[in-house]
Amino acid sequence: MGTQMQPDIQSLVLELGRRARAASRIMATAETCAKDRALEEIALRLVAERETLLSANARDLASGRETGLEAALMDRLELNDGRIGEMAAGLRQVATLGDPIGEITDLRFRPTGIQVGRMRVPLGVIGIIYESRPNVTADAAALCLKSGNAAILRGGSEALHSNRAIAACIRAGLAAAKLPEYAVQIIDTADRGAVGALLALRDFVDVIVPRGGKGLIERVSREARMPVIKHLDGICHVYIDDRADPDKAVAVAFNAKTQRYGTCNTMECLLVARDVAVPVLQRLVPMYLDKGVEIRGCEESRAMFAGIKAASEQDYRTEYLAPILSLRIVAGLDEAMEHIETYGSHHTDSIVTEDLPRARRFLREVDSSSVMVNASTRFADGFEYGLGAEVGISTDKFHARGPVGLEGLTSQKWVVIGDGHVRQ
Amino acid sequence: MGTQMQPDIQSLVLELGRRARAASRIMATAETCAKDRALEEIALRLVAERETLLSANARDLASGRETGLEAALMDRLELNDGRIGEMAAGLRQVATLGDPIGEITDLRFRPTGIQVGRMRVPLGVIGIIYESRPNVTADAAALCLKSGNAAILRGGSEALHSNRAIAACIRAGLAAAKLPEYAVQIIDTADRGAVGALLALRDFVDVIVPRGGKGLIERVSREARMPVIKHLDGICHVYIDDRADPDKAVAVAFNAKTQRYGTCNTMECLLVARDVAVPVLQRLVPMYLDKGVEIRGCEESRAMFAGIKAASEQDYRTEYLAPILSLRIVAGLDEAMEHIETYGSHHTDSIVTEDLPRARRFLREVDSSSVMVNASTRFADGFEYGLGAEVGISTDKFHARGPVGLEGLTSQKWVVIGDGHVRQ
Repeated sequence: MGTQMQPDIQSLVLELGRRARAASRIMATAETCAKDRALEEIALRLVAERETLLSANARDLASGRETGLEAALMDRLELNDGRIGEMAAGLRQVATLGDPIGEITDLRFRPTGIQVGRMRVPLGVIGIIYESRPNVTADAAALCLKSGNAAILRGGSEALHSNRAIAACIRAGLAAAKLPEYAVQIIDTADRGAVGALLALRDFVDVIVPRGGKGLIERVSREARMPVIKHLDGICHVYIDDRADPDKAVAVAFNAKTQRYGTCNTMECLLVARDVAVPVLQRLVPMYLDKGVEIRGCEESRAMFAGIKAASEQDYRTEYLAPILSLRIVAGLDEAMEHIETYGSHHTDSIVTEDLPRARRFLREVDSSSVMVNASTRFADGFEYGLGAEVGISTDKFHARGPVGLEGLTSQKWVVIGDGHVRQ
Repeated sequence: MGTQMQPDIQSLVLELGRRARAASRIMATAETCAKDRALEEIALRLVAERETLLSANARDLASGRETGLEAALMDRLELNDGRIGEMAAGLRQVATLGDPIGEITDLRFRPTGIQVGRMRVPLGVIGIIYESRPNVTADAAALCLKSGNAAILRGGSEALHSNRAIAACIRAGLAAAKLPEYAVQIIDTADRGAVGALLALRDFVDVIVPRGGKGLIERVSREARMPVIKHLDGICHVYIDDRADPDKAVAVAFNAKTQRYGTCNTMECLLVARDVAVPVLQRLVPMYLDKGVEIRGCEESRAMFAGIKAASEQDYRTEYLAPILSLRIVAGLDEAMEHIETYGSHHTDSIVTEDLPRARRFLREVDSSSVMVNASTRFADGFEYGLGAEVGISTDKFHARGPVGLEGLTSQKWVVIGDGHVRQ
């Protein structure tokens, strides 16, 4: 992008970084009860400051209307009583999660007599860059706080007043729990150079989490001078094997596509083994069409059923996030896995089969952040997996893969306990 | 550095990347017995090809002498019967380690009825950049191979002939075990542009491990377009608390400095609580001086004992890797931890104390990859920790921290097993 940065925005962001680093040292050893108290205090304030939040949000909505923000963004930008309640509930939910920090695992005696184990520790300072939804400010703050990290948050400039009001509640809540106010800071300016300045802050920010559209994520990956926990495409597949139970196949394939269209774990492409294509699709095709799902299929499927449009090569590489499904008939497991490797995005892929060796192969051989047997891809989610909360879903392999909860914002250091032991 | 890359070296390295990616898919699901067989076949060949290795090495040594390579580098470059035997033994040792790949952990039923767990998987393609020691070629290949990854190795150009001969044994060993020969490739050219080309290969190399001097590591961190597992300084401390057992204190502090001088986990700075400084240093100072260790201490220590030189501010920030020790007398635990935070490198730090609350605080509050109680910093090592082998010691927090063994070259994907389950 080659954004020309103003010296003042750079020094502003640098100052946030310094303060965050200092706060992170205190947060790293903060007691669980203090962190949980802060979460509760923030929740209380969000509800108590309801009027302030709504009037700040009204200013953002007014400017949004003026600048002609599109309807979907206006919807995400809006706060109301329900959404404020959800933010408060989210904070309290994070307070109920176990504290990952300080946990010592695998403490074992070594032949030399020392005990060696690992202790879970925070990463330090987390930078989160997101778009219009102001509730992310509270959600992200909660996860960083509970995992003993400091956070620097950069929300969309269209939500600046809302984020400022939420940040004030967070600061007050931290102070009430006697935790450093700088543990959660927002970048409180509409200056577009702020993101570039944050991404350059290698010495003060340990990891960046971009949450938003593909453009944002690609920019962050390209420019960040520190590690990034990111989510790219979700081109998810369901493969219906010829040894599938037809009822399970129909249930899983229908749910994976239609339970929600706009989510990253929604199936975008259905693969069906040739030997069961007719009986399975005979049931599924009318269900999809009735539901308003457009089907774009291979030649073979189009010869079998009416109402299927032609799929192009590009269709198989597309994350529709819409009521559109690509469909392909394959010879069997190998061709299905080949298709997934070629066209998929390593997000979430599921096989429907009753056959144990095939299930075992699919789980082992498919290189995706979630691999499933006889289950809807829609289950790929931090809450469904029992993480309690989710920072995002990582499509990387390094550090964290798949849904990232509190643990993804931590690391482990080694702990050695001896009794005067020396190395021979 | 602004190295001007030749188009031919870029396309050569790109081709290595493509082959490595293809090989990594096969390696990811290779059976343990095939991987262990390859390790054994490579070990056999290294010993059988002893003459070939030695004559290749002789060529490298001759050019080294011609170009006036310094003595320490010449020593590292040299292969002999003992070192060839050690390489073979190292390969067999890695074969005895458990296979981390495919291990499923924490498979639990969720309230929805699905089972959710995690399966350990390789990272993919590992790039390793190292300097003159040719044995790293075999060691690094073994770790990558056992962890189901493909490897691209770039050794020092002064060891090119030796590395080429070792790589031929590795290729033959892989082929004998029916594994892809391209699973381990060396960059077989002295062209200095090769490193730059490798660091730019984001789509084909999943992680880079630089092993060598600070200059190399800083360059790699700066230029790499993929994650890096790296080791920077090892400025390690021992803090002798006023509640230390004096015998343990003397044993640990002496061993941590003198057991080996050139290693990253060697103590570089000794901190002693004021109340025990006289009795403890009365024993330690003569021991260090007898051993030929130069002591550079604070004013207070110099007033107590003869033979201590003055330490500058810079001394406390220096990794000597030599028989030199910096020394400082501190008021107690808090000042010691403050010093470690200010001057240390977050590598390995140890407290000597009999006091449980202080040990507990030190373990929790000191932000280093290894924190120790009553043990020599020299224990910070993959073998001593029971990892069986070590790719390096990471001073980062992201992904892997401290000694990195096979597990550090892996990630975990999510596994979901249902029976036709759909999301409500």
